[in-house]
Parts: sequence; structure tokens; C-alpha cells
Amino acid sequence: MRYRRIPDETIRRLPIYLRGLLYSSEQGKESISSDGLADFVRINSWQIRKDFSYFGGFGTRGIGYNVEKLIKEIKRILKLDVLRKVALVGVGNLGSAVLAYPGFKMYGFDIAAAFDIDNRKIGSKINEVKIENVKKLLTLKKRGINLAIIAVPREAAQRIAERLVKAGVKGILKFSPCYITVPKKVKVITIDIAMDLARLPYYMPAC
Amino acid sequence: MRYRRIPDETIRRLPIYLRGLLYSSEQGKESISSDGLADFVRINSWQIRKDFSYFGGFGTRGIGYNVEKLIKEIKRILKLDVLRKVALVGVGNLGSAVLAYPGFKMYGFDIAAAFDIDNRKIGSKINEVKIENVKKLLTLKKRGINLAIIAVPREAAQRIAERLVKAGVKGILKFSPCYITVPKKVKVITIDIAMDLARLPYYMPAC
Repeated sequence: MRYRRIPDETIRRLPIYLRGLLYSSEQGKESISSDGLADFVRINSWQIRKDFSYFGGFGTRGIGYNVEKLIKEIKRILKLDVLRKVALVGVGNLGSAVLAYPGFKMYGFDIAAAFDIDNRKIGSKINEVKIENVKKLLTLKKRGINLAIIAVPREAAQRIAERLVKAGVKGILKFSPCYITVPKKVKVITIDIAMDLARLPYYMPAC
Repeated sequence: MRYRRIPDETIRRLPIYLRGLLYSSEQGKESISSDGLADFVRINSWQIRKDFSYFGGFGTRGIGYNVEKLIKEIKRILKLDVLRKVALVGVGNLGSAVLAYPGFKMYGFDIAAAFDIDNRKIGSKINEVKIENVKKLLTLKKRGINLAIIAVPREAAQRIAERLVKAGVKGILKFSPCYITVPKKVKVITIDIAMDLARLPYYMPAC
């Protein structure tokens, strides 16, 4: 089934709903209302219903959503219903934290490769992942890895992005607070810690 | 001037616009259209205009937005027009990366305090910030720090959040892929790297 054009903002919220549902499932919940999910993920229930309406709704009026079915459906939409290998570039403090991050598995991600330029790091292992020379980036293509996380200093981000694109990478998550230019077919998502922090003061009392 | 109730989603996007505008300003741009800003921040121009409409618009039809004026206005709305001190709890790999992150200053943030439980770290300095014993968290109140970043292992996140609330903290940014419970008056924002990564496969070709 093909859906009509889904707004990026809806796609951004689906993983938030998915996380709430996975957590509800862990707690043994079998069904959840949009209000219940709203409380949990702190997004308005009308927004949730509107987002779900793009996919035909999911719910049965008065009964709420079946948690397992909805998890399965959202995973399918987000193409998270297969195991996906991910490469990490840059194993400094941030990269090491990424390698140690326990949250990837629940979305079906496996950090399967890590690269750095530092000879002292190359060859060592963090969390069972061997750190390789960044010169080996081109091997990603034949290893079936087309997702990457960039955790290098910002002055290196553009260069690394270009090499990843050459290696067949189609999706990039980066941390650097900078803009990078890649071909349109490559999707880039940026995590800017400071930008997220910038949402907080608005909610705080004047004191 | 008081505004009508602004959706959280609009508040979430304002820092994205702000970053685009600050970057445009650096490039010497004096004015920008909503389409120009849209290209830059990759959010639809109708969404931008709708978000700005909550604040009365900002623009002059046909001329676009004055970059400097808009930066000032968004900073004021987000209460980013003052310097804000921030505390960091947890100076492991992730916390160290936060301390080294170059992007805070542009939003007016100053990481002014860092705490850890590890005696080997306490007393040392990273980027001019002295690492203090986590037992000293209560001193935040008299130091005028009411924003905090939690970068501790997830099993410690709830405990640290409670201690931060006791210390008068009103806004928390956390990384742990877990839910924490705090009083309603405290705003919590979570960065879940895996959840952001989970948006990427949707945009990738089937291959």
C-alpha cells in the first residue's frame, strides 16, 4: 500500500510514538488510547490522531490502539522491520559514547563498523566493534552498510560526508553544529545539543 | 506583549530557524524570504509562516524578513536574550563531549558547572570547567543555575533528576533512553540518538 505524501514532521514524530509504544509493551499493556499515548510521549492527542490518519488511522473507535499491531505497523512504515547495520566515523569522546549507547537495538540498529584517523585507536575494540582506519570507508559498500553516524570535529564533517556518499551511504546522522552539503538523494539529520537546550528557557519561570 | 498559546512543536522549530538565521547573518545576509529560510533549514515555507504567525508575522510582504531583527525577536521569545549558566552532571565520554561542544555560546549558554561521582575526575578541569563532587549539587541554587544536562548512565538518571529538582533546577536536558518522572513545573527534553537515527531509513531507497 502506498500512502499520500507524509510530512517530514510526522515522520519525525513516529519514532517518538514507537518508543512510547515499545515501553508500554514492556509494561505489559495490550491496548492504548491516543490520550494515553499522548500523556506518555507528551504530544497532543489530536496531533497523534492526525499523524496516524496519514496511514489510515490504525485505531478502533472507543477501544484504542492495539499496542503490538501498532508497533509492527510503525516499524514497517519507518522501514525499521529489518536489522540495519550502521557505521560510526570518529571515535573520540562522542563516538565512544555512541558505541556504548544502549538504545540502538530497540530500533533494529547494529553499529557494525567504526572508523578513526588516530593510529593509537585503530585496531582496538570498543563494545565488540573494531576501530578501523578511516581510509577503509569505501569498504562500506560491499559490506552492505548504507547508514552512518558522523562524530568528527566540525572542520572534518564535510570531507567525511563526501567520502561516505562515495561509499554508497544514503543516510547520515551528524552531531557537528554546522551545515554540510550532500547530494539531494542523501538524507542528513543533525543532532545539535545546544539547539535542543535552546528550547528549555521558554518553559522556565521568570524567577 | 503576551502571545496566544504557542504549540510545543512551534517552540521546537524556533531554535532551528534561529540557527539558520545566525548562519545567514554570518554570511552577511541582511534579509531572507520564508522560501530562502525554508531551503536552508529544510522545513516547508508554509510551516515557517504559520509558526511566525503566532507572533504576529515578523515579515513585510515581498521584502522578506530582516535577519538581525528576526534573530533578536526569536531570542527574546525563547528567553535566550540573556546569558544562561548550565550545569552538567556526568563527565564520562558523553559528558566530556558536551564540555567540548562548541555550539553552546551562539544560544547564550555557558556550561558553568560539572559534576561526577568519580574521585579520579573530581577536582580536574575540562575546558576551564572544574569537575565537582556530585554531592555539591545543592549549591546550584545559590549559584543561580537552573538548567542542567544529565549525561549519567540510565540507572542513575532518575536519582540525579530528583536531586537537581531539589537544587532548584527548572529545565533538564537528558540523553538516557529512558523515562524519568519529575514535577510538572520542570521541563524535560530528551536526546535519544537512536530515535533520531530511526527517522533515516524511511527516506532511503529500497535497494
